[in-house]
Amino acid sequence: MRASRNPIAGSVGALGEVGLLDAIAKLPRSRSVRGVEIGIGDDAAVLKKLKQNAVLSTDMLVEGVDFDLAWATWAEIGHKAAAANLSDLAAMGATPRATLLCLALRPHDRVRNVLQLVRTVAEVAGTYGAPLVGGDLSGTGGPVVVSVTVVGEAHKARLLRRHRAAPGDRVLVSGTLGGAALGLALMRRGAKTPGRYRRRQLRPEPRLKLGAALAYSGKVTAAADISDGLAKDALHLPREGCGVELDMTRLPVSPGFAALAREHGLDPLRLALAGGEDFELVVAAPLRHVRAVQNIGARTGVPLTEVGQVTDRPGITCVGGPAGFAAAGFEHFNGPKATV
Amino acid sequence: MRASRNPIAGSVGALGEVGLLDAIAKLPRSRSVRGVEIGIGDDAAVLKKLKQNAVLSTDMLVEGVDFDLAWATWAEIGHKAAAANLSDLAAMGATPRATLLCLALRPHDRVRNVLQLVRTVAEVAGTYGAPLVGGDLSGTGGPVVVSVTVVGEAHKARLLRRHRAAPGDRVLVSGTLGGAALGLALMRRGAKTPGRYRRRQLRPEPRLKLGAALAYSGKVTAAADISDGLAKDALHLPREGCGVELDMTRLPVSPGFAALAREHGLDPLRLALAGGEDFELVVAAPLRHVRAVQNIGARTGVPLTEVGQVTDRPGITCVGGPAGFAAAGFEHFNGPKATV
Repeated sequence: MRASRNPIAGSVGALGEVGLLDAIAKLPRSRSVRGVEIGIGDDAAVLKKLKQNAVLSTDMLVEGVDFDLAWATWAEIGHKAAAANLSDLAAMGATPRATLLCLALRPHDRVRNVLQLVRTVAEVAGTYGAPLVGGDLSGTGGPVVVSVTVVGEAHKARLLRRHRAAPGDRVLVSGTLGGAALGLALMRRGAKTPGRYRRRQLRPEPRLKLGAALAYSGKVTAAADISDGLAKDALHLPREGCGVELDMTRLPVSPGFAALAREHGLDPLRLALAGGEDFELVVAAPLRHVRAVQNIGARTGVPLTEVGQVTDRPGITCVGGPAGFAAAGFEHFNGPKATV
Repeated sequence: MRASRNPIAGSVGALGEVGLLDAIAKLPRSRSVRGVEIGIGDDAAVLKKLKQNAVLSTDMLVEGVDFDLAWATWAEIGHKAAAANLSDLAAMGATPRATLLCLALRPHDRVRNVLQLVRTVAEVAGTYGAPLVGGDLSGTGGPVVVSVTVVGEAHKARLLRRHRAAPGDRVLVSGTLGGAALGLALMRRGAKTPGRYRRRQLRPEPRLKLGAALAYSGKVTAAADISDGLAKDALHLPREGCGVELDMTRLPVSPGFAALAREHGLDPLRLALAGGEDFELVVAAPLRHVRAVQNIGARTGVPLTEVGQVTDRPGITCVGGPAGFAAAGFEHFNGPKATV
């Protein structure tokens, strides 16, 4: 029942839940605890009073489905779990305030690894203003499960919303596309993976500054984050009955991206359109605001590229791509389930 | 890729994530959606502005560890997941406002079962004022995982806290003890389990009214909910360096509880002290407030029984029990890890 002298060196099973909670409580605090009234250690966490509407997002990542310990470190899994949630707040234009973390762990998991994951969740979320304030640990006989919930705030009149864009609105994406999917494909094959693409897959950067600035501007008619791929997530933008036309010649990718993908037999266009997990923002804006919206991107350090427009034809229409691509893409991304 | 004509009849794998999300979105709304600005269907949920401090709690339940589909229905698992979280809010004296639900599901899980779980989470949490506003679905190759997060609110000056009780403060518990553990033990053995004990284990009632009334009264010095058993959770009450003396002769149990436990070779005192998952509240109050605190219990329909007091001796001290019990209990519940 007693913890070993160096509990960090042992396994979760040997240390036990209480010992692990103790070790977690001793981790250095995440940077920002200003907004917290009561953190870890009571029945529930309490925040200082929010000035705006509470915005809530949660995600569950399962080993073998959403991540693979064969090529991702525990710290990277923590980073990704935090970033994926924060990205949802970015897509609403909300400001993060607090983070909760649930873990299902196996008895043989190393305490050192678990602490690295927890510390990384706290660091990443803390960097964006959402300190880790509570959570729960459970044992499991199966895969490791990481579930993160983030609480943010935003004024309801300044929220970025889905399903609000009208035909003619231009569609823009932040940053570059396909990098996360290329990183994943290369790591899965055990191929040499440039740091840039490994980071895109495992250490995504939620576009919180950009989301907040766009929300504040009032110049965007709809927004979503790109977690399932541009072709799916762009469909969150238009009003009911409308769709999105994407120009294949304008999808922003990193220099060398297409060549590296082709070198490994991968279709760069497919990665950029459908790869997912880029955690960029896709937004719609009336033509007259496109320049202003792009200026906001430039000001927050994340360029916005116009990639298409909202149309009155439901679903995704791909134009400007190589022969045969649009049709194949259409089948894939625009079945009855992918339309909203 | 297409959903069957009656998607509810099929498996999660056949329906797919998008189809399952569609089916969930079509469930009848939980009763209370007054406090919700944006519910399921955007990147994140948005609440109407909270008037008080946000209070956050999260729990993760893993099949085979925290529940067993062999003897619990999916609805019961949903009930328990929601109630366990709401109980943490009760222990803070907070009022529930919103609920998030994450599920890890296997391809062969039945859609009908999953919808029953989701509907029950929404109903139970909705009954207490916390509608289901969002969540996440993931696949898994392992056990089913259910993770619930609840957001509540409370005024920071009116919170029930841990670690605040002083020597001499009386310790009181709500309702009865050991029923959830007895229900679990009987179900695990496949023994006939009276409905009362099955409900205690699988459909616990969070003591939200009681917690809120106690918090409002200002007459309680500390509080916690009983999830790990009275002997462990009572130790959340005293200030650092102090402990709790429990009178074994005063532990409240249901009529017939002890006889039924003994009939199955179980120690009723051990069930009441260490069984856990009763989700009752354990509170401390100065002697002069005990009567008033008990009146609050009576008014909210949940009697409070005085079971001991805070002392300057760290850990749990059991008095009034059968010979040999206190020592055995002490070893079990008061190792270096159980003290706070």
